[in-house]
Amino acid sequence: MTAKPSAPVHLLADHTTPLIRSAWYVVARSDEVTREPRACDAMETSLVLYRNAAGQVVALQNRCCHRSFPLAHGKLEGDAIRCGYHGLLYAPDGRCIEIPMQKSVPASLRVRAYPVVERKPFVWAWFGPPDAVDPEALPHPDWLGHAGWDMYIGYLRIDASYIHLHENLLDLSHLSFLHATTFGTPEYARAPVELDVQGTRIEAWRHVECHLPDIYSVPLGWQGQRARRSSGSCFVAPGLHVNTGYLRNLEGANPQPEPTIRVAQVITPIDRHSTHYWFAGCRNFVRGRPDIDDFMCKAQFAAFAEDQFAMQQITRLEAIDSAAPVVEAHIPTDAAGIAMRRHLAALAARDAAG
Amino acid sequence: MTAKPSAPVHLLADHTTPLIRSAWYVVARSDEVTREPRACDAMETSLVLYRNAAGQVVALQNRCCHRSFPLAHGKLEGDAIRCGYHGLLYAPDGRCIEIPMQKSVPASLRVRAYPVVERKPFVWAWFGPPDAVDPEALPHPDWLGHAGWDMYIGYLRIDASYIHLHENLLDLSHLSFLHATTFGTPEYARAPVELDVQGTRIEAWRHVECHLPDIYSVPLGWQGQRARRSSGSCFVAPGLHVNTGYLRNLEGANPQPEPTIRVAQVITPIDRHSTHYWFAGCRNFVRGRPDIDDFMCKAQFAAFAEDQFAMQQITRLEAIDSAAPVVEAHIPTDAAGIAMRRHLAALAARDAAG
Amino acid sequence: MTAKPSAPVHLLADHTTPLIRSAWYVVARSDEVTREPRACDAMETSLVLYRNAAGQVVALQNRCCHRSFPLAHGKLEGDAIRCGYHGLLYAPDGRCIEIPMQKSVPASLRVRAYPVVERKPFVWAWFGPPDAVDPEALPHPDWLGHAGWDMYIGYLRIDASYIHLHENLLDLSHLSFLHATTFGTPEYARAPVELDVQGTRIEAWRHVECHLPDIYSVPLGWQGQRARRSSGSCFVAPGLHVNTGYLRNLEGANPQPEPTIRVAQVITPIDRHSTHYWFAGCRNFVRGRPDIDDFMCKAQFAAFAEDQFAMQQITRLEAIDSAAPVVEAHIPTDAAGIAMRRHLAALAARDAAG
Repeated sequence: MTAKPSAPVHLLADHTTPLIRSAWYVVARSDEVTREPRACDAMETSLVLYRNAAGQVVALQNRCCHRSFPLAHGKLEGDAIRCGYHGLLYAPDGRCIEIPMQKSVPASLRVRAYPVVERKPFVWAWFGPPDAVDPEALPHPDWLGHAGWDMYIGYLRIDASYIHLHENLLDLSHLSFLHATTFGTPEYARAPVELDVQGTRIEAWRHVECHLPDIYSVPLGWQGQRARRSSGSCFVAPGLHVNTGYLRNLEGANPQPEPTIRVAQVITPIDRHSTHYWFAGCRNFVRGRPDIDDFMCKAQFAAFAEDQFAMQQITRLEAIDSAAPVVEAHIPTDAAGIAMRRHLAALAARDAAG
Repeated sequence: MTAKPSAPVHLLADHTTPLIRSAWYVVARSDEVTREPRACDAMETSLVLYRNAAGQVVALQNRCCHRSFPLAHGKLEGDAIRCGYHGLLYAPDGRCIEIPMQKSVPASLRVRAYPVVERKPFVWAWFGPPDAVDPEALPHPDWLGHAGWDMYIGYLRIDASYIHLHENLLDLSHLSFLHATTFGTPEYARAPVELDVQGTRIEAWRHVECHLPDIYSVPLGWQGQRARRSSGSCFVAPGLHVNTGYLRNLEGANPQPEPTIRVAQVITPIDRHSTHYWFAGCRNFVRGRPDIDDFMCKAQFAAFAEDQFAMQQITRLEAIDSAAPVVEAHIPTDAAGIAMRRHLAALAARDAAG
Repeated sequence: MTAKPSAPVHLLADHTTPLIRSAWYVVARSDEVTREPRACDAMETSLVLYRNAAGQVVALQNRCCHRSFPLAHGKLEGDAIRCGYHGLLYAPDGRCIEIPMQKSVPASLRVRAYPVVERKPFVWAWFGPPDAVDPEALPHPDWLGHAGWDMYIGYLRIDASYIHLHENLLDLSHLSFLHATTFGTPEYARAPVELDVQGTRIEAWRHVECHLPDIYSVPLGWQGQRARRSSGSCFVAPGLHVNTGYLRNLEGANPQPEPTIRVAQVITPIDRHSTHYWFAGCRNFVRGRPDIDDFMCKAQFAAFAEDQFAMQQITRLEAIDSAAPVVEAHIPTDAAGIAMRRHLAALAARDAAG
């Protein structure tokens, strides 16, 4: 235990904090974006996504600037999309380029175009000012989608603030309780957490010698054997958290390279009270086995559904408990979450200022 | 294209504009009003409707002035209605005329009575000040319910502003897109719209030579033949819009009189975000054929369900898109809709002043 | 008819009046509270209820002071309850006594503990300031749960203000109308109501000679015989109303003691717009007959479901009828209800002042 919470509460982001717009967020899985337009509600707005003829992803404001019909119910014509209500045609840069029954189109007629970057298996969009788009800030890690790793992807919609989700992911102490029957093991409750919080690096690590939970021991064939498990939770950006796990068998042979888990926890606020949540679990062991992909995805889904339940219950209580003052006590294991919330509050303030 | 939008946006009625109370609105089909009391939610209030012993329609505030129980759950006694909670008895003029266990009734005890006019197939009610009731303003057209026309009636509840519906009906340009597979024909997209906007006359006309859509060609037996189709959209009052269609076969024989369609689009706001919508389709051809009534009603229902979908999608986007500024660009084909919205804004202002 | 309404409307409590916190309310049936934690939403907050090892009921704020997870999803350890999210352990007095991975616990970490009194068949909780808990104010009557009476208990959730329910119960005049086919009898409509309103005693009585409704005549075997029925409605406290009925056969033999009905109408606001409603019907006749318990409970349930319907309809109309001014006329039979509402308004004012 190396850090203590010290921030005044009012400097910590919570579900009342404005969303952080100058950031990248995933708006779809790559394989969901095709030549059929598709809507994605995100960041208190709605986008339409499609691929142009060359296969590049286009992301536009979903709301026709004429009478607000969703463009996602329109049709593609080459690289452009035609509104399904009155037929206005939009270029991939958002400009309206044709109005039926009208010769010229005022230059001001347009919808917002969102800068997008596709990095399989995801499509990222920039929600900040277009002239401030920052490709360097794209949080997509190299290993995600890389051929060196096998991967599964799950999805949950969480009707709670994305900040609850970030906090949940940074906090390793809940595994022994909320996930007692899925991820947690008795040894976890007794293992110290090492926090590494410096500037924008916000990480929490735990090193445990234990019997691994089924999600790891079954694929590795290590049931009943003790192993060393090093688990890290790392805040990366408002739209991404990464979990890392290093596993070493203490009783039997160890494969090469060291069995490693990396989970991209992809987090996109729909609004301040609901969140898209994709989890992409990557491993460097027992490869080329779709049955193991399925097994691990289902196990992780079960655990994350427990998190979903917890966050939605909290959100429900926050709404019911209108008579009580808001109380939020902190404990040392919250230090990483508090650092994250202080960081998000600062980003929100920067957004508001800029 | 004869008109251009010119009104400043803030003079155009939209879903935030107060409802226009000094007007007539349909509250039921005639055949729905019987000796069994019936509720109708309309104009941000609730009415109870019933027939007195002589068969005349009575429309009262649905809310007992004692403890607010809906009178529609009460029982008729002759011409009067008795509340089902504590038994207060109301005369058709709204006065409370009996309180159980009490000898006299204070003169002030009453519910509001709404002036009603029954013109089959509908019952109209006046929602403005009772002393300002204006029978001349009743928008019921002579042909509607007249023996010279065959008729079907459909109904949809639309969870969107009634102003979106008026605008939709005045706008012929969306037929080629939203109704591409139902009402629209390829020739429609190329035909000019003639707007006739003078004072409170707000009409849009289109004259097209085309293959008629099935809804007309099947009853007339004109499939595969070219016809001239003149379509008019006419705003009549906050509670009524009329569509007219004149059809002439260009390749074969034409019946007498000229095949004509008139659709009474009956529009009653429930509140600013939801709307009753009855459509009464009348024709002067292929008469006395209930099977043709059914065929045309189903075809129209399919098309109007597309409008319902569009308006509800727009309403949903308006709610989601809280982060974006409200944008509403106008195009020349909106001129009739803009004139209508300017007119409704003026009526709302007159309501507020009076 | 001995009393007249005279209070100005603004001194009468209604659904906008703050809930009265310095009072006792039932939070569960005794048999619902076990060694499995259980939530009860009440009084604009949420409680967790459980029994300690000695069988005494514990009532705590349901919201962990750390991250607001509901303790009702936690687990008991002896007399304490451990939060299911991060494992904080709370003593029955609400103090946090253990935080996993941490040696000491700040004294300020606690959830609110609610004083509770169990009087079978119910558990009462005090929602006012803990240091003002007033055992004398506990409204549990001696006969309720007493071996001298047979009892059934029913439950309804009512999506309306608890004040509507109190008013409904004090008002005997609606029986002839709303309950015409269940409780009401034709003679009821003609019987005078005697109001006994002095200070905080708020009672209404009716004495009728009639054929009893089935709920009484069937168990007593008095079908077709005339009887005297004295019915009293008594406001006791914000959380309790008591109905009393004395029955005497006018045509046949009468058992000893005099057949008497007492119904504890247990009323707990969930918030200002929804209400828990338990009804415990007690009788001193035809005893030891579970089939009669069932018969009477079902009959009463049918009648109270009519009240539920009425109150929910009223609440719906109050919401729809936004355009109309709020009107509430009073009639003489409202005197008891008005006295109750004046009393509740005074209690709410006392709460706010103290």
